[in-house]
Amino acid sequence: MDFVGKKMLVVSAHPGDLLWRCSGAVAKHVQLCGEVQAIVLTYGVGGEANELIEAGMTVQEAKEERTRALKKAGDILGISNLELWDLNDYRFEITQDKTYKLAKYLRICKPDIILTHHGKDILNPDHGVILDYVNMAMEVAGGKGIEIEGTVPGFKRAPIFCFEPHNAESNGFVPTLFVDITDVIQKKIDAMATFELKKSLAASYLERASYRAVNARSFGRGKCKYAEAYAAVYPVAQDGYFVY
Amino acid sequence: MDFVGKKMLVVSAHPGDLLWRCSGAVAKHVQLCGEVQAIVLTYGVGGEANELIEAGMTVQEAKEERTRALKKAGDILGISNLELWDLNDYRFEITQDKTYKLAKYLRICKPDIILTHHGKDILNPDHGVILDYVNMAMEVAGGKGIEIEGTVPGFKRAPIFCFEPHNAESNGFVPTLFVDITDVIQKKIDAMATFELKKSLAASYLERASYRAVNARSFGRGKCKYAEAYAAVYPVAQDGYFVY
Amino acid sequence: MDFVGKKMLVVSAHPGDLLWRCSGAVAKHVQLCGEVQAIVLTYGVGGEANELIEAGMTVQEAKEERTRALKKAGDILGISNLELWDLNDYRFEITQDKTYKLAKYLRICKPDIILTHHGKDILNPDHGVILDYVNMAMEVAGGKGIEIEGTVPGFKRAPIFCFEPHNAESNGFVPTLFVDITDVIQKKIDAMATFELKKSLAASYLERASYRAVNARSFGRGKCKYAEAYAAVYPVAQDGYFVY
Amino acid sequence: MDFVGKKMLVVSAHPGDLLWRCSGAVAKHVQLCGEVQAIVLTYGVGGEANELIEAGMTVQEAKEERTRALKKAGDILGISNLELWDLNDYRFEITQDKTYKLAKYLRICKPDIILTHHGKDILNPDHGVILDYVNMAMEVAGGKGIEIEGTVPGFKRAPIFCFEPHNAESNGFVPTLFVDITDVIQKKIDAMATFELKKSLAASYLERASYRAVNARSFGRGKCKYAEAYAAVYPVAQDGYFVY
Amino acid sequence: MDFVGKKMLVVSAHPGDLLWRCSGAVAKHVQLCGEVQAIVLTYGVGGEANELIEAGMTVQEAKEERTRALKKAGDILGISNLELWDLNDYRFEITQDKTYKLAKYLRICKPDIILTHHGKDILNPDHGVILDYVNMAMEVAGGKGIEIEGTVPGFKRAPIFCFEPHNAESNGFVPTLFVDITDVIQKKIDAMATFELKKSLAASYLERASYRAVNARSFGRGKCKYAEAYAAVYPVAQDGYFVY
Amino acid sequence: MDFVGKKMLVVSAHPGDLLWRCSGAVAKHVQLCGEVQAIVLTYGVGGEANELIEAGMTVQEAKEERTRALKKAGDILGISNLELWDLNDYRFEITQDKTYKLAKYLRICKPDIILTHHGKDILNPDHGVILDYVNMAMEVAGGKGIEIEGTVPGFKRAPIFCFEPHNAESNGFVPTLFVDITDVIQKKIDAMATFELKKSLAASYLERASYRAVNARSFGRGKCKYAEAYAAVYPVAQDGYFVY
Repeated sequence: MDFVGKKMLVVSAHPGDLLWRCSGAVAKHVQLCGEVQAIVLTYGVGGEANELIEAGMTVQEAKEERTRALKKAGDILGISNLELWDLNDYRFEITQDKTYKLAKYLRICKPDIILTHHGKDILNPDHGVILDYVNMAMEVAGGKGIEIEGTVPGFKRAPIFCFEPHNAESNGFVPTLFVDITDVIQKKIDAMATFELKKSLAASYLERASYRAVNARSFGRGKCKYAEAYAAVYPVAQDGYFVY
Repeated sequence: MDFVGKKMLVVSAHPGDLLWRCSGAVAKHVQLCGEVQAIVLTYGVGGEANELIEAGMTVQEAKEERTRALKKAGDILGISNLELWDLNDYRFEITQDKTYKLAKYLRICKPDIILTHHGKDILNPDHGVILDYVNMAMEVAGGKGIEIEGTVPGFKRAPIFCFEPHNAESNGFVPTLFVDITDVIQKKIDAMATFELKKSLAASYLERASYRAVNARSFGRGKCKYAEAYAAVYPVAQDGYFVY
Repeated sequence: MDFVGKKMLVVSAHPGDLLWRCSGAVAKHVQLCGEVQAIVLTYGVGGEANELIEAGMTVQEAKEERTRALKKAGDILGISNLELWDLNDYRFEITQDKTYKLAKYLRICKPDIILTHHGKDILNPDHGVILDYVNMAMEVAGGKGIEIEGTVPGFKRAPIFCFEPHNAESNGFVPTLFVDITDVIQKKIDAMATFELKKSLAASYLERASYRAVNARSFGRGKCKYAEAYAAVYPVAQDGYFVY
Repeated sequence: MDFVGKKMLVVSAHPGDLLWRCSGAVAKHVQLCGEVQAIVLTYGVGGEANELIEAGMTVQEAKEERTRALKKAGDILGISNLELWDLNDYRFEITQDKTYKLAKYLRICKPDIILTHHGKDILNPDHGVILDYVNMAMEVAGGKGIEIEGTVPGFKRAPIFCFEPHNAESNGFVPTLFVDITDVIQKKIDAMATFELKKSLAASYLERASYRAVNARSFGRGKCKYAEAYAAVYPVAQDGYFVY
Repeated sequence: MDFVGKKMLVVSAHPGDLLWRCSGAVAKHVQLCGEVQAIVLTYGVGGEANELIEAGMTVQEAKEERTRALKKAGDILGISNLELWDLNDYRFEITQDKTYKLAKYLRICKPDIILTHHGKDILNPDHGVILDYVNMAMEVAGGKGIEIEGTVPGFKRAPIFCFEPHNAESNGFVPTLFVDITDVIQKKIDAMATFELKKSLAASYLERASYRAVNARSFGRGKCKYAEAYAAVYPVAQDGYFVY
Repeated sequence: MDFVGKKMLVVSAHPGDLLWRCSGAVAKHVQLCGEVQAIVLTYGVGGEANELIEAGMTVQEAKEERTRALKKAGDILGISNLELWDLNDYRFEITQDKTYKLAKYLRICKPDIILTHHGKDILNPDHGVILDYVNMAMEVAGGKGIEIEGTVPGFKRAPIFCFEPHNAESNGFVPTLFVDITDVIQKKIDAMATFELKKSLAASYLERASYRAVNARSFGRGKCKYAEAYAAVYPVAQDGYFVY
C-alpha cells in the first residue's frame, strides 16, 4: 500500500505509551512520507510519572516535565501535531464530553489509520478502555445527524491497529501484524531517551523490539532486526487482495 | 504487494472445494499476472459426488466426470497445473507417504502463497485435517536433513490462507481478509457451472460472495460487489508495514 | 414448545434493527398465536437515519419519518405494542434511570422470551451495550426489595436470544439456533420495505436470510428457504429434554 | 419435540461412561416412548476396571464382570440393543476398520439423536477422541459412493449431544442444555449400582446430578431436583423455532 | 508458601457471597495464622435478601438482619475486620467516589492476597463488575501522584483470586486452583447457617464443596473431601518456581 | 513446595528444545536438590539440525554431534539420566509402540513433575503432538490392566508444565507461571553454548529470558532478572492452598 500523504493518528492513554509502544511505526510512517498526529489523553501523573514524583516533583512540575520531554520526542519522530489533553488518568472514564471532543478531532483530522491501545491490560485498566473510547468516538463522528460545533457531520471509519500491552499473553493480545522498524530504530531509541528517568524501561522495550523481530523473521521478514507488534481490529478489506 | 510471477498453490480436499471456496481468488491471481497450481487431493466420490451416484453413475464414471469438469474449470480459471491425486476421501487420513508426496510437490513448485481448508468443519471432517496435512508437508519440505527423491532439501514456508467452510461460525472460522472478486465474478460463475448437477449449490455460493461483499464494504472496500473470505494462518510480516 | 399466548419482547437499539434482524421471528411468533411487544430505544437519528439526513430532512423530520414507517411495519408484523423511547443514540449510555425505566416495563409486560442485540458490534458500539442493559434491567426487575412506582416487585427471568450483528464472525457471533421464516418471508420483505430509502440494505438482509437457510438445511431443517440466526444467552433448561 | 418412536444411540468409550454420564437421559428417553441403543466401544479393562483388577480379577474375568453388570444396567434402563465392541482402550485409536464398523451400524440403526463424549478430557485422552470417531463415521455412513457390505449407502446426520467429562471446566465443557432426570433418578441410581465396587463414584455422580439441577433451576426449570448436562455439537435447526 | 501474618482481603458484592463462595478459604487462612479482613459492598437488599422481604421485613429490617447474621458469621470465621459499605446493589455502578473509597482502604490495609468475584455472572450482573472495580481501585491506590486524604500514596499490587459464580461454565469460570477446606468445613457450615432462611442454598454449597473435592482429588489432592474453586487473575510469579 | 528428592522428567521433541526452552528450570531443580531426567525423542536431524547439514555433515554425523553436545549440556545442568530415543522427527507420529515405550519409562521413573511442549506450534507441528503423546503415555502407564514387560502396572499422574514455543501468542500459549532462573542463568548460557553453530538462537533465548523477567516482575517477583515461562496443564490442587 502507498502511504504517501496518508494520515496516521495515534491515541495514547499516557505520554510514555506513545514512545514504548509505537514510536517505531510513527517514525516509519514519516519515513514513508505519511503524516502523523498524536493525542495523548492524560499526563499520566497518576501513575506513569511515579518516577518524577519519587524524584520530588509536584504533580504540576511532572506535567511540565512530561510536556517538555514529549514535545522533544515528537520532534525526533516527526509528528506534525501532538496534543496533550489532560483528561485525568487513574481512572480514565468515558464520558459524553470526552467522546465528542475526540469525535470533533476525528472529523477535522480525517485519519487514514489509527493506532491505539489493546482492549485489555489487567495491570493498567486505563489502557483497556481507550479502544472503546476511540471506537465510540468514530461512531459519533460518522453520524450525519450529530452536530458538533465547527465540524461537518460525517466521517469515514479508519482501520485501527492496537499496539501491545506490557504483558501480552496475559492480556489476550495476539499480534496479527509486525511492523519492521529496523531502519528507524535509532529514532525510537532517541525518542525513548527523552524520558530520562526511565532508562531501564527504554532498554526493556528495545529488547522487546528485538524479540518481535524474531517473530517477524519466523513469519517471513528475513532481515528484520527490530519490530513492533500490532493487532488489527478489523479484517483486511480495503486492499482487496492477499497481504502477508 | 506485487503478485506478478508469484506462484499460488491451492490444496483442496475435493474437486468442488476449488470452485466454491476460492475460484474467485484463483482467477484474480491470474489476472494479477501470477501463476496458479492446484492439487485436488481426492475425487470426492465418497460424498461430494453424491449427485452423480444418485444420477446412476458408477464410482469410476463419477471420477471421470469430475476430471472432465474440473479440467474445464481449470482452463476457465487459468490454472497452469491441476492435479487430481486420488488419495481417498471419507476418510482422509494423514500418512507418511502422503506427507512426503506433498512435500515433494512443494519443494519443486516453491509456492509463494497457499490456499487451503480451514482447520475445522464439523459436517465434513475430511476438510478439517487438510490444514494439518499441508502444514506438516511444509515442515518436511523444509528439512535439510530429509531426502526425497528428485528434490533438493529445503523449502521456504509460504503463508497459508484458509478459505471458508460451509457453516462459518459453527466451525470457528473468522475472516481476517476479504478478496474482492468483483472483476472476475463471471469466471467464478463459469467455473462453478462446469459441475452441471450442482446448480443450486453454485447459486448459494454466488449469494455467499455477495454477502462477503457486504462485509468487505463495511470494512472499507466501498465498491466491492463480490468477495471471498479468508483467514490467515500466520500474522502479516513479509510486507513489513500496515496493511488493511 | 407451545407459544400460544406467550409474550415476546423485542428490545432494539434503533428502528431498523427490528426489521433487518428479527422481523421474521416476530411475524412467526404472531403466526404461532403469541403476542409481540417491541421497544425501540432510540430513533437512530445519530447514524441509522443517515440516508434521511442526506435526503435533506432535519433531525426532527427524520424522527417523524421513522415513527411513521416503523408503525406501519409494526402493523404488518402484528406487533401489539410498539414503543419508541428516544433515549439518544450515538452514544447510548446505561444509566440508573434508563435501567429502571426498562425494569418497570419488564415487570408490567412479563415477557416469556426476549430478543435483543448481540453483545458486540465493533462497527456500531451502541448495539454492543444493549444486551448488558437488558440483562441489568432484568436483575433490577427481579429484586423484591426494589420499589418502582406502579409495579409489584419481582420478575421471572425470560430467556434472551440475540439476533445477529452486521458482520457476524468479526463480532464473535455464533448462532446456536435458526428460526425458519420461510412461511412469513413476505411479511419480513414488506416490513423492511417501509424504510423506503434503504432498499439495498433490505435486499442484503433478504440474501442473508437465504444464506442462513443454507445453514439451517445443513443442520437438518430440510426445506427451509429463509431463516434468521440467533444466539441463546442461557442454556436450554425450561424444556427439560433434548431439542435440536 | 415428540420423541415417540425416536431412536437414541449412545456411543461410550467404556462401560461406566454409559452409567455415570447419561443413564438419566437414557431412562427418560425410554419413558418418553423412544428407543435406545448403545455401543460401548471397549471393556475399559485398561483403566476403568482398575478396581476389578485390584480385587484380583484377570483381564478376562474383568471383561466378563463388566458384561454381566452392564447387561443388567441395560435392562434396568430399558436399552433395546446394547453392544460391547472390545475395540481396545488405553489407547483408543481411530482406524479405517473401526470407522467403517460404526458407519455400518449407523446405516442400519438410523438414529435420530446421538449421545457421546465431549471432545476433550485431559485426564482420559480416550474419551477425547470418541467425538471425532463418531463424527467421521457419520460422514462415511452418509457417502453415497461408499460401499459397506450389508448396507444401503446414505445416512441422514443425527444431532450429537456430548455428555460431561469428569472435570468439566478443565476440559472446556460448557453445557448448552440440561435434561431433567428427576422422574427417572431411581433408574440412574439402580443402573449405577450394578458396578458394585464403584459405590463412591456412583455417589459422586448422584451429587453431580443434584448440582446440575441447581443450574437447571437457575435457567428456568423450577422444580428440577436432578439433571444431566449436555453440550450440543450443532445449532438447533430441525425444530425451526425458539427453544429454551 | 508461608501465610503467617499475611493479610487476606475479601471484597464481596453482597453479604451471602462471603459465605457461600469463600468462607472455607477464609477459615483456612485464619487457621494458617493469617489475618482476614472483608468488605461487603452492599446489603444485598435489592435481590439477595429476597427471602427476608418475602418474610415480611422492610428493607431497613433486612439490612439489620444481614448485619446481625454477617457479624456472627465473621466471628465464627475469625475475620478481624468486617465492613458493610451500603453502596447500593442492583445496580452496582463503578464511580470515582467508590473507587477512591476502596483505594483508600487498600492503602491502609495493604493486603497480601485478595479474593473477589469472577468477572462475569450472566444471572447477576452486579457480581460481574466487582473485579473491574477492585482492579481499578488497586491502580488508583498505587499511583504516587494521587492524593487520598489520610493515606500515603503507593500500593503494591496483591494477587487476586476469583471465587466461583453460581453457574460456573455458563460464565466462563475455569478454576486454576482448588483450596482444600476439609479441615475447616464445619466453620463454613456454621457460617452459612447464620443466614437462617437460606438453608437450601447452604446445602447446595456444601454439595458444591464436595464436587470441587472430586476435582481436587483428580488433580492430585488425594484425601480432599471439601474444596473451593478459584481462578487466579495473574500468573504465578512471586513464588519463583513450580507449584501444583 | 519442597523439591528435595523430587523427580523432574523433561520430554522434548528435539535436542535443542531441552536447552532453549527449559534448561533454566532444569538447573534450578537440581539446585533445589531435586533430580532431573530427560528424554529427547528425536535427534532433530529433519530440521533442527539444519545448520549441521549445511555445514556439510551427513545425517549420521549430525546425530553424533548432537549426542556429544547434548551429553555435555546434560552434565552442565546436572541431569542424572538423559536418553536420546531416535524416534524420527519430521514427522513425529504417535503410535502404540512409542506410547508404550514412554509409558514403561514413566512407570519406572515415577516422576513428580513433567516438563514438555505446548500443544500447538504452527511453524513446527512436531512440537504440537508431544503433549498428547505424553498425556496418552501417562494414561497407559496408569492402567492396572495393562501389562508392559518389566513394569508393575499403575502410575500416579504427575502435573505437566508446558514450556513456551517459538512464537508464543501465535500458538495460543498463555503463561500461567514464571520460574525465576536468575541464580542459574550461567548454567543455561553454558548449556546453550554447547550447540556451537546456534549462537544467535542462544542469544535470542537469553533475551527471551530477560523479557520473561519483565513479566515476572510485573506480577510480583521484584528482583527477577531472568525467567522462563510455563503453562500448567492442570489446575493447582496438590498444594491445597493459594500460591502466587
